[in-house]
Amino acid sequence: MNNNLSFNNLVIEEIKSVENLMRDQAKDHHADLQAALEHLISSGGKRIRPNITLLAGRMLNGNINRLITLSAAIELLHTATLVHDDLIDGSLLRRGIPTLNARWSPAATVLTGDFLFAKAAKLASETDSIPVMKLFANTLVIIVNGEISQLFSSRCNHNIDQYYQRIYEKTASLFETSTLAAGLIAEASEAEKEYLRQFGYEIGIAFQIIDDILDFTSNAEKLGKPVGGDLRHGLITLPAIYYFESHQNESNVKNYIDQDCFLTNTNLDILIEQIRNSDAINTAYEKAKSHVSLGIRALLRLPEGDDRNALEEMANYVTNRSI
Amino acid sequence: MNNNLSFNNLVIEEIKSVENLMRDQAKDHHADLQAALEHLISSGGKRIRPNITLLAGRMLNGNINRLITLSAAIELLHTATLVHDDLIDGSLLRRGIPTLNARWSPAATVLTGDFLFAKAAKLASETDSIPVMKLFANTLVIIVNGEISQLFSSRCNHNIDQYYQRIYEKTASLFETSTLAAGLIAEASEAEKEYLRQFGYEIGIAFQIIDDILDFTSNAEKLGKPVGGDLRHGLITLPAIYYFESHQNESNVKNYIDQDCFLTNTNLDILIEQIRNSDAINTAYEKAKSHVSLGIRALLRLPEGDDRNALEEMANYVTNRSI
Repeated sequence: MNNNLSFNNLVIEEIKSVENLMRDQAKDHHADLQAALEHLISSGGKRIRPNITLLAGRMLNGNINRLITLSAAIELLHTATLVHDDLIDGSLLRRGIPTLNARWSPAATVLTGDFLFAKAAKLASETDSIPVMKLFANTLVIIVNGEISQLFSSRCNHNIDQYYQRIYEKTASLFETSTLAAGLIAEASEAEKEYLRQFGYEIGIAFQIIDDILDFTSNAEKLGKPVGGDLRHGLITLPAIYYFESHQNESNVKNYIDQDCFLTNTNLDILIEQIRNSDAINTAYEKAKSHVSLGIRALLRLPEGDDRNALEEMANYVTNRSI
Repeated sequence: MNNNLSFNNLVIEEIKSVENLMRDQAKDHHADLQAALEHLISSGGKRIRPNITLLAGRMLNGNINRLITLSAAIELLHTATLVHDDLIDGSLLRRGIPTLNARWSPAATVLTGDFLFAKAAKLASETDSIPVMKLFANTLVIIVNGEISQLFSSRCNHNIDQYYQRIYEKTASLFETSTLAAGLIAEASEAEKEYLRQFGYEIGIAFQIIDDILDFTSNAEKLGKPVGGDLRHGLITLPAIYYFESHQNESNVKNYIDQDCFLTNTNLDILIEQIRNSDAINTAYEKAKSHVSLGIRALLRLPEGDDRNALEEMANYVTNRSI
């Protein structure tokens, strides 16, 4: 993410505080754990969730210290799920950087993820808000349930409703919690909380659709893994769903579905190339943009000002990013 | 556990409610997850933590529904840690019953543990007590930190202070939380909470010392694993610490320590037999009893009645159990 984007500039100091608070969680713990957390934080991506949380909370005059605590809880929860995900997938790289899993034993990786879950729960409890803690615990249930469904039931599933359910559980649920919990901290009205929730939900759905598009359209260097990785793992995402709908009789498509989403590497490469070059990418992209529009529509019912402008910019960034 | 013991009879209905609430957590989730939870609950041991929680809370007139919710949260947290522990140890049996790990893939086992952590946090939040949630999250941190220390630093460690630290993190911390959280629900006074905490702490320490003794004195059938398993894994517990102190010059002891706690199986069998037949077992047993006495001393400062009597009986059971 370009750090000069204004949505980031508004809360640049607060984001530093969030990162420091995340780092503090390993203090007084095992040196290897500190090193692991440092590795995770320094390779840590765009901090999009803390940015959204902080801006949403500021927009409604929430207490900044409690928002920082909440943001650190949310980002640690996100980090914990990535650690266990990478272990489950056997991923050795994330954003081109070695995963914990690539460097540590499975046992150490499981426990580091558990440690981050525990610290995330501890930080959530330090917001001193029962509704935030309930929301947080429920979100963790939703995310883990989604991972379990993905593990047991998602192979070769090209049902669009189940795709939406999956990306809600996997991604949008935590975006929704980021904005709604910020509203809870800021003691927003019921209507405001509902607009916040909608904004988080729609941006989260768009974010994951774009991730799923980039898995086809990006390159291996940027992705840190081969292009079309989802399809190679039998995971059918929105671009593929659209492509399959409009190319049901193409032999590669028929074979892929008939063979429980196993194909030879050559045929997989061809299928991925076909999807990359098809209208399905653009159709999925338009769908993501329509979710951003719905999110912005809800956002614009909330108090205007710099924070709201930054959130709008951030929403538009979600569909314009290249990684 | 003998279900006719009176400490169990007092809360027999409440324990059923706790188990039902635990089962409910998998409702509306994946069928395999329901089966896993059913397997874990039905092979689920003595329910000593829910019994302590319920009795401690009743003793101070706590709300029974909130105590049931708390007890289910604590037992699910305990279950979650066992699931990840078995995965980390590669254990295929627990109490002679196949572990989840023996039946499922590592990925499914990691996620089932995560799911139970998430549901435990959700139940803790449903007690509607911020102090309970904070205590709960902190306890999870302590337990996981203990597992990480055990993984990275406990091999061949025969320092007695570090042994106590380890069994506090591993076992006594959750016993302490069981009694203290019950006191928080019951709105106990500061003094009462401190006596509750002491009782839980001492009983938890005694419980783990007895577990460590049984690892030497029991038989493979009861343990569901070979006798002396800790020593075989390079984990030095109280009976071995005492034995090593008084037999520093014995060749098997010297070799074991010198060789980073690796020995041939034959020499390990001999060493285990030597410890089994030594005074070290009795010395460790007396130590456990002294912790129970300290626990009962704290307990007797709390309101008398059936619940307190049952807790006293339970404390004595801890050192009299054979498995």
